[in-house]
Amino acid sequence: MHFATPLQLQSGALLADYTLVYETYGSLNADKSNAVLVCHALNASHHVAGVYQDDEKNVGWWDNMVGPGKALDTNKFFVIGVNNLGSCFGSTGPMHLNAATGKPYGADFPVVTVEDWVQAQARLADALGIVQFAAVMGGSLGGMQALAWSLLYPTRLRHCVVIASTPKLSAQNIAFNDVARQAILTDPGFHGGDYYAHGVVPKNGLRVARMVGHITYLSDDDMAEKFGRDLRSGAYQFGFGIDFEIESYLRYQGDKFSEYFDANTYLLITKALDYFDPAKEYDGDLTRALSKTEAQFLLVSFMTDWRFSPERSREMVQALVNNKRRVSYAEIDAPHGHDAFLLDDPRYMSVVGEYYNRIWQELEQPAASTAVTEAAGAVHEF
Amino acid sequence: MHFATPLQLQSGALLADYTLVYETYGSLNADKSNAVLVCHALNASHHVAGVYQDDEKNVGWWDNMVGPGKALDTNKFFVIGVNNLGSCFGSTGPMHLNAATGKPYGADFPVVTVEDWVQAQARLADALGIVQFAAVMGGSLGGMQALAWSLLYPTRLRHCVVIASTPKLSAQNIAFNDVARQAILTDPGFHGGDYYAHGVVPKNGLRVARMVGHITYLSDDDMAEKFGRDLRSGAYQFGFGIDFEIESYLRYQGDKFSEYFDANTYLLITKALDYFDPAKEYDGDLTRALSKTEAQFLLVSFMTDWRFSPERSREMVQALVNNKRRVSYAEIDAPHGHDAFLLDDPRYMSVVGEYYNRIWQELEQPAASTAVTEAAGAVHEF
Repeated sequence: MHFATPLQLQSGALLADYTLVYETYGSLNADKSNAVLVCHALNASHHVAGVYQDDEKNVGWWDNMVGPGKALDTNKFFVIGVNNLGSCFGSTGPMHLNAATGKPYGADFPVVTVEDWVQAQARLADALGIVQFAAVMGGSLGGMQALAWSLLYPTRLRHCVVIASTPKLSAQNIAFNDVARQAILTDPGFHGGDYYAHGVVPKNGLRVARMVGHITYLSDDDMAEKFGRDLRSGAYQFGFGIDFEIESYLRYQGDKFSEYFDANTYLLITKALDYFDPAKEYDGDLTRALSKTEAQFLLVSFMTDWRFSPERSREMVQALVNNKRRVSYAEIDAPHGHDAFLLDDPRYMSVVGEYYNRIWQELEQPAASTAVTEAAGAVHEF
Repeated sequence: MHFATPLQLQSGALLADYTLVYETYGSLNADKSNAVLVCHALNASHHVAGVYQDDEKNVGWWDNMVGPGKALDTNKFFVIGVNNLGSCFGSTGPMHLNAATGKPYGADFPVVTVEDWVQAQARLADALGIVQFAAVMGGSLGGMQALAWSLLYPTRLRHCVVIASTPKLSAQNIAFNDVARQAILTDPGFHGGDYYAHGVVPKNGLRVARMVGHITYLSDDDMAEKFGRDLRSGAYQFGFGIDFEIESYLRYQGDKFSEYFDANTYLLITKALDYFDPAKEYDGDLTRALSKTEAQFLLVSFMTDWRFSPERSREMVQALVNNKRRVSYAEIDAPHGHDAFLLDDPRYMSVVGEYYNRIWQELEQPAASTAVTEAAGAVHEF
């Protein structure tokens, strides 16, 4: 969908016009009350669920969560996946033509924030005639967008589902992002962001960026379990090729990523992560920051997630409770670190599924449902 | 000191001859029983303590620990610091001339292991007439060398002091090392390791390597305390320069490091870290591996060290206890992560100081001392 009205960005810049690529699953009901917006994280896209007729191997990034009969049941809900501004999967981004110059944006693409994305998504909702979402949902950076929705448009979502996320990055989180950015920015193939014109990509930088990022997505234990100190060929090689399986795995992940992801997009998205901090304008007081919310909340965290640990989710839960918001919170004892939010785990899926059941019951019988969500694991209703 | 006899390395390669640069502090007593060998970690050297007459700003890396009246008291002990093979601070390494080719070793410098370093150090001890050290001591990678001494030369050290170390790297540790290596290896300035001939250094790669390494040396909490989300100029810049103080700090550390450290040395030393695993030839059974030890042990770990966590030290303590070795162990509640082993902390210094007092008493009154070390904090005598 093309938007011809300029978008005012948080930086002060104006995006003259832009296109958002989106996908929908299920059917919008007559009163348009069953829409759920799913927001994506760093390297994902609008392709949330299912496969394409002509590309059956291209499975949506949250296909285990979203689909007919799944936790977010597309037989009941009308689910929208939208690719964010600055991304490299179809929506307007650094690789697209800048009408003002006739060249790709490259380094000229403005720095966008989580709040900018939400503004752009809200225009899509307007165009689709959706006044209020049944829920806005996301994991990690996607969870930040869901939270930002609850602050920028408090009445436009009834539920806010924030998974494996945080109200702001820590110094360590920012540090890892900056290592990744420096790897890209100092790659001679980067050409100040205008590598498109040079017919190259800063592949080495992107590769290292992905490798370091990937380490933070996995738990120490999970890595130990999957790879340990296993040797590729059974003996030390006494060189700088591949000794350990973990090296082989990480390099493969880095190589693969550097072949499909855009370096400018990586820079932009890590900046959006770094900048997100809704409590900033309240002297760091998250309770005051979240006082604007009107939605009900489900938060989920994973015990082995050291990127955005459960403590960060609990901080949000506490701030919402301080504001007397209705909050469900589940802390899942999954071994997979931050990545757990993308993986199948019966307790996790059951928590989210039960929460959507409750949302569905509210839609069916608006006045009746005050039932408390219960599911296996450490689910608390505040 | 130059060694003309070839050194057989663990890889099978032979180092035809080599030089070790070393420093000593204090005086060797008449029966040569008061010598302590201090082994260095990744980026340190033989310059353990004190300053040079003509360079008073160049303070030894463990000057807070080693010196007259300090925890390792050079009024009592004869302390030796030795730069390891492959390093870039004077001992034979990749930047030195390879007599066989007439060119710098570069990529041809053989991969060396912790055990190779110990072999080389033992020859230095021979040359100095030291049959048995009062103690061999090191932190982090230096602790691995101390442990290797206790296995390769069980009778040549009476005490083994292993600080903030581990009996082997985890998959996550190796992963971080490989990210650093890949940053260096893929820097176009690396030239396959022979960058000396090209008059360049892989500065960008080294810089990123150091940045990622540095993150693992600090604790999350300490970073939060020191930098948090503090902004350099008070407001978001909406660009890819410096926003956060943590970015400024890390880039500065990376820049500084890339100006003095050799890239080939970085590769070699991370490999030595990855390869160290004395339990490897015992099917991972550390108790069996450590059954060869005869020394008494002091181990120290730091509660916020997530690179080599206290759990790893406890694993060594348990294996030594299983072998009925005499072990003192202190777990220090310091906030500074892995870096704590280099920093001043009164409890830490007191634990090490008391331990050296005991060693000193044994030297003075060989038969009398069986007193148990006691110091503030969680010190356990097994």
